Amino acid sequence: MPHASPPTPALLFETLNAYQRTAVLRAAIELDLFTAIAEGAADADSAAGLCGASLRGIRILCDCLVTMGFLEKQAGRYRLTAESALFLDRRSASYLGAVTAFLGSAEATEPFHRLARIVRADGARETGATLAPDHPVWAVFARSMAAMMTAPARMLAHLAAQTPPAPQRILDVACGHGLFGIEAAKTFPGSTVVAVDWAPVLEVARENAERAGLNGRFHTIPGSALDASLDSGYDLVLIANFLQLLGPASCERLLRRIHAAMNPGGRVLTLGFIPDEDRVSPPAQALFAATMLAMTPEGDAYPLSGYQAMFSRAGFARSELTALPSGQRVVVSHR
Amino acid sequence: MPHASPPTPALLFETLNAYQRTAVLRAAIELDLFTAIAEGAADADSAAGLCGASLRGIRILCDCLVTMGFLEKQAGRYRLTAESALFLDRRSASYLGAVTAFLGSAEATEPFHRLARIVRADGARETGATLAPDHPVWAVFARSMAAMMTAPARMLAHLAAQTPPAPQRILDVACGHGLFGIEAAKTFPGSTVVAVDWAPVLEVARENAERAGLNGRFHTIPGSALDASLDSGYDLVLIANFLQLLGPASCERLLRRIHAAMNPGGRVLTLGFIPDEDRVSPPAQALFAATMLAMTPEGDAYPLSGYQAMFSRAGFARSELTALPSGQRVVVSHR
Repeated sequence: MPHASPPTPALLFETLNAYQRTAVLRAAIELDLFTAIAEGAADADSAAGLCGASLRGIRILCDCLVTMGFLEKQAGRYRLTAESALFLDRRSASYLGAVTAFLGSAEATEPFHRLARIVRADGARETGATLAPDHPVWAVFARSMAAMMTAPARMLAHLAAQTPPAPQRILDVACGHGLFGIEAAKTFPGSTVVAVDWAPVLEVARENAERAGLNGRFHTIPGSALDASLDSGYDLVLIANFLQLLGPASCERLLRRIHAAMNPGGRVLTLGFIPDEDRVSPPAQALFAATMLAMTPEGDAYPLSGYQAMFSRAGFARSELTALPSGQRVVVSHR
Repeated sequence: MPHASPPTPALLFETLNAYQRTAVLRAAIELDLFTAIAEGAADADSAAGLCGASLRGIRILCDCLVTMGFLEKQAGRYRLTAESALFLDRRSASYLGAVTAFLGSAEATEPFHRLARIVRADGARETGATLAPDHPVWAVFARSMAAMMTAPARMLAHLAAQTPPAPQRILDVACGHGLFGIEAAKTFPGSTVVAVDWAPVLEVARENAERAGLNGRFHTIPGSALDASLDSGYDLVLIANFLQLLGPASCERLLRRIHAAMNPGGRVLTLGFIPDEDRVSPPAQALFAATMLAMTPEGDAYPLSGYQAMFSRAGFARSELTALPSGQRVVVSHR
């Protein structure tokens, strides 16, 4: 593609400062600035008052948030965008500000400060602490990311419902908050769900299952899905945001165990960040590989062909890619 | 503006992870990955070899860099974009990788980790350490940002040359690397330059002036431009990337001193990040206010009206906005 204008270092400068956008948004969430504006603090002065913050600080934060697309500004008055009203006003049922507890945790962010060291030949030693049994970050993940997962969990259950027959026994692998299994149980009233994860994480999942009124139909197996006895007879297996944490050999080992635990004709739905075969698009899916590089010794954002190979070696008949209405991607694998 | 599609948390998620883009680019610069690819390492395997890094790590870095616009990828082979070839190949005369020494320094980045605290009412105590006399970060700034400033320094001198008469005495306020004064001295062969900055920073400026062959025409005054005796008789005053570090009262005090040191008919050229009056555009200019919020107790990205008010109160006749060919903005103030 020919360049219309001479090269400038604008992208370089913007990218070296991209971390500032994260910091501005996190500060605004921490100060509950979006809620203050939603409650009627339309100028920097009154928002500063509501947030107990300095006028200069709030004015600069607000202007940056306009530039970044989170607020609108007209004649010195700020108001929330539709997205910010839905996701960043603490009074909204869809409030997502709590995701910063995980996305901004030291476990998630700190490895990026030493990414070059991780990439060096001996980098594997630098990562993977978070994959140790019972690491507390996964309970944080389960609690703080649940809000972001309700919608996709519902969409995944609807996807499963599009192809009869309705599953009787459902396995939710590395269930975290448990929402994927819970939404499936709600969609298939005759079903029971078995959810596997570390014991401290299962506490969160059980709370969510109780809240959904599923007590009798929601069972748990504590431990790693790679080691724990998975029981058997499953018609539907949900693996959300998990296989990408593992290397191909571990994925394959897990998938063999899952295959052995499934009924003939059963399906596995794998939700995750799944880039195109070029591995550089779409941006959100492709860039997720960096998170796996930073946080895990062998994880990756696998494209469909990667999943097809792993599922096929584990004995599955075929795997295909589909997308949820949210744009999130799912590999459907048939036993 | 009506929304074409239902609200999604995509921008929220992307912004909470924007710091990862900075980390990916910084890691690639630290590993000299761009130079390796420029030298012919077109696939991840050979780039990993040249960089002494893991294949998985380099492959993920490269793919992310494609997604981020710093590399191109075709059939599994990577190559540099025009911008990356110019600015990120260490062998290029326009190599800018060294700017990470300042832009990635603890002084520049660390305050963003506690931005909410800085914004709170008593936040001023949290910032401004970098403005203490002789703080070493400014010598780092002078050394590492020089490469990024050569082109704008030349453009600023050309701007000054567009309006005769040629200046005889030039003052470079808070000169840093000294490049703005040096390029002006080169453009006006009969002129002498007086450069003011902390003593450790002046060492860098003097090195650059020597390298440019200006010895007899490049003089220095150590200290803060707010306190040091500035001498007098200046026809042209250059203030690059400095007034924005100060609050309006300090700016005005400095401008009064400069006004008193200038010849009638003289001009001040103020280069900096100068957003439109709405303070939310263009993005690079507007977002710079966050850097001033994080690093200084009173600094700001002032729009033209802000500079007009400060210069006018300091006794200047009028100030107008102009832009360099690079898009960087300059306020021209007439004594």
